[in-house]
Amino acid sequence: MYDTLISGGHLLTMAGDGVGFIENGAIAIDKGMIVAVGPRDEIEAKDEPRERIDATGCIVMPGLVDAHLHSAATTGRGWAQEISPWMASGYGPLMRHAIEEDAPLWTLLALMEGVANGTTTFGDYEFPMNELIHSHIAIGSRAVVCEGVTELNWANREQWIADGWVPGEPTPLDRELGEQTLANELDLYARWHGHDDGRIRVIFGPHAADFLSKEMLLKVQEEARKRGAALHLHTAQDARENKATEQRYGLRAVPYLDSIGLLAEDLIAVHLSVTTDDEVDLVARRGARMICCANSIGIIDGVLPPARRFLEAGGVVGFGTDQSPGNNSHNIFAEMRANAMFAKIKTEDPLVMPAWQVLRAATIGGATALGIGDLTGSLEVGKAADLIFVDATRPPMAPVLLEPARNIVPNLVYAESGSNVVLNMVAGRIIYRDGTYTLIDEAETKQQVADAAKRFTDKVAADPGVNELPIVQLTRTGRH
Amino acid sequence: MYDTLISGGHLLTMAGDGVGFIENGAIAIDKGMIVAVGPRDEIEAKDEPRERIDATGCIVMPGLVDAHLHSAATTGRGWAQEISPWMASGYGPLMRHAIEEDAPLWTLLALMEGVANGTTTFGDYEFPMNELIHSHIAIGSRAVVCEGVTELNWANREQWIADGWVPGEPTPLDRELGEQTLANELDLYARWHGHDDGRIRVIFGPHAADFLSKEMLLKVQEEARKRGAALHLHTAQDARENKATEQRYGLRAVPYLDSIGLLAEDLIAVHLSVTTDDEVDLVARRGARMICCANSIGIIDGVLPPARRFLEAGGVVGFGTDQSPGNNSHNIFAEMRANAMFAKIKTEDPLVMPAWQVLRAATIGGATALGIGDLTGSLEVGKAADLIFVDATRPPMAPVLLEPARNIVPNLVYAESGSNVVLNMVAGRIIYRDGTYTLIDEAETKQQVADAAKRFTDKVAADPGVNELPIVQLTRTGRH
Repeated sequence: MYDTLISGGHLLTMAGDGVGFIENGAIAIDKGMIVAVGPRDEIEAKDEPRERIDATGCIVMPGLVDAHLHSAATTGRGWAQEISPWMASGYGPLMRHAIEEDAPLWTLLALMEGVANGTTTFGDYEFPMNELIHSHIAIGSRAVVCEGVTELNWANREQWIADGWVPGEPTPLDRELGEQTLANELDLYARWHGHDDGRIRVIFGPHAADFLSKEMLLKVQEEARKRGAALHLHTAQDARENKATEQRYGLRAVPYLDSIGLLAEDLIAVHLSVTTDDEVDLVARRGARMICCANSIGIIDGVLPPARRFLEAGGVVGFGTDQSPGNNSHNIFAEMRANAMFAKIKTEDPLVMPAWQVLRAATIGGATALGIGDLTGSLEVGKAADLIFVDATRPPMAPVLLEPARNIVPNLVYAESGSNVVLNMVAGRIIYRDGTYTLIDEAETKQQVADAAKRFTDKVAADPGVNELPIVQLTRTGRH
Repeated sequence: MYDTLISGGHLLTMAGDGVGFIENGAIAIDKGMIVAVGPRDEIEAKDEPRERIDATGCIVMPGLVDAHLHSAATTGRGWAQEISPWMASGYGPLMRHAIEEDAPLWTLLALMEGVANGTTTFGDYEFPMNELIHSHIAIGSRAVVCEGVTELNWANREQWIADGWVPGEPTPLDRELGEQTLANELDLYARWHGHDDGRIRVIFGPHAADFLSKEMLLKVQEEARKRGAALHLHTAQDARENKATEQRYGLRAVPYLDSIGLLAEDLIAVHLSVTTDDEVDLVARRGARMICCANSIGIIDGVLPPARRFLEAGGVVGFGTDQSPGNNSHNIFAEMRANAMFAKIKTEDPLVMPAWQVLRAATIGGATALGIGDLTGSLEVGKAADLIFVDATRPPMAPVLLEPARNIVPNLVYAESGSNVVLNMVAGRIIYRDGTYTLIDEAETKQQVADAAKRFTDKVAADPGVNELPIVQLTRTGRH
């Protein structure tokens, strides 16, 4: 006897180096783990389940991995567009009014969006994670979290300017803030790492090469390595970062990070937006993993990060949704499509970034990037039962064509939006089914979101300094 | 007294040159037409409705216009990817097995997808429209249809080859087929134009400059103009077309069409994929309208059609979903996002193709392009009540921020997939609400689709000629 049999659908297991398709397959689950997977007849002949879940008409596949997001920024969803530079002329001046007490609610909203659209694992890089962690626990998804370590203290901005700092230049660093944020990270790790049978994992988040001194970066690395935890680092994310490391250490960000031993297998390198081909190859060669946030970086900067080259260099790529003021969603189906399509548009070659490769990045790639590829990301014996059902009886998944050519994977990547996700299971527990979250109250959350949005916009609108912002002007002219 | 009051939501009317936002607005509808639109208090003070529809929590906006699709091709959804050239190495050899008797079902599936995702008007270019028209009538959406006129008779392909024709070269033309397909078009027009209070309109569809002789093109134009009907023409869609017109008439497609008087206000120019900047400007200057199919052309060719330049040249642009073997969906939300994002990625400029401009193209732009801008495409007095509700209480639409900067339009364009469309109304009649089609039986259609898919794949699989196709090989290696 085992706990649960899932049968009746087609499987995309991601086992092997393709999509691991099994027509009319079945999965046996016991104590949250996959104990058998294969053709239905074969699995059903083995043993009896306590419970059966019918997947008829569905594609059953590994849950998606959102390997990099800033969950609480949903408070300002859509407030970083049609402006440039987005940080200075929209996001920054507006988001500094975000209300910290409401942050757990905004994180929950981000997770709800992800879960409804098939995400089972979130790589959440957000402050104050010691509070936000409760949202991850509540919704039931898998989480690999950090709170972030930084020595860049924006609260001192007025003082920097008084001292002669020019916006856009590398900023002074604040060791005290660095020590304090590292202490928070250590506290987070001590309290929550391994929580709930390992569903919650804590890693370390040094913000970026220009946000920390060399000494602090190395200290974070040391603390992380003591615990076997990975480093989640924004890497070569913008020109300012290269400028800062060049001024401080005489090297661009990637070679600087290499020179101090940061580029290694325990590094999760996010973005790589501002890199040379050689730098991309170097990061991959060192065994670091790349997270590509195609929609976010595409919308706010018009830039396509080098996921394709990273894959060609033999590296592991996962996808992230980043932050919703710029993205504007936490939906890995949208990231799959963006990665597949942007590469084609950029190169004018319809053969680059094929759907199967993109689907692997969104599942086993993301899991491997977050350091939990042995636990999740594919449907294989010994892994956690983190999986989703996608209803294939409706457009854009219908019709399902099996012979002589399948159409399932292209339709998942180029068309499916996540709206056909009808079941989301993490470690064998159903956390979302047929439009309903099983562990949280959606109606209550919606009302709280509406109330919190009002609090936030009232606070922002009370700041006369925002009136001249381009995004406010666009709104007033009816073009937003 | 009037028929229906819609109130409680925010409106995006598209009136004026922006998005025409009205906070807490209302719309009064009588006999299928909008008789008042404005702030809720103002509209409610005027007169009493027979029926009220509550739009609380929703964005109410004009229905989307899918200005160019080949609806019946859903039979082969997803069968034109990861291959190049897509037509010869996938679509062509597979789709020639499509079963004509099932075509109305496949059209219905395409329309169901569009309606559920907010489309109210379909510019359907498909054969045999004299049969397919019944699917348009059944679902209740607005349609501007044509069956297509062509002199290119693929049935003679073997004979061409025997006569020395080389694939890729311009093909012989078959005047008899041209006359026959024109007769079908005239028959379609006579039987269906103006059907159901004008909900069904018929225009003329000369296929492309390389599919018809000059004489036949001009004859179609003459017949269309006698009836005041527009011409729906694939224009400069590929290199083969330019090659054919150069061989036959010494000019590339666009200057050739201009030389014979085709570039005019009654021309709907689809694609313009293979054009110079001057050619794009010329088409716009002549007053012809452009339909951009960004996802289709992007996936199958890696090409971004010149919608941005066409708009800059003062032209009218609408969006189309084209055909689902290549796209793979009939979803104008996906087209909005593609148009906004691909332009940014291509130019590395996040300011091009802003959301408000894209939203206008998907509504009033598409309606104007199809020649019915006076009837639909915006929420204004005197227009048909063609509108949709988008639930904004859920991600990616939540939270709704109104002050000091709105986030509704960016979230609609950059994130919404169509899954939050909770009501679709055409000419005052609700054709879809809360996941249910009001005029057709979805469960029955799903079963018919599954059966028809089996018939189709059985027929394709019985053709040994398909075994060597790249798409079949990809499937067998687990990479599809």
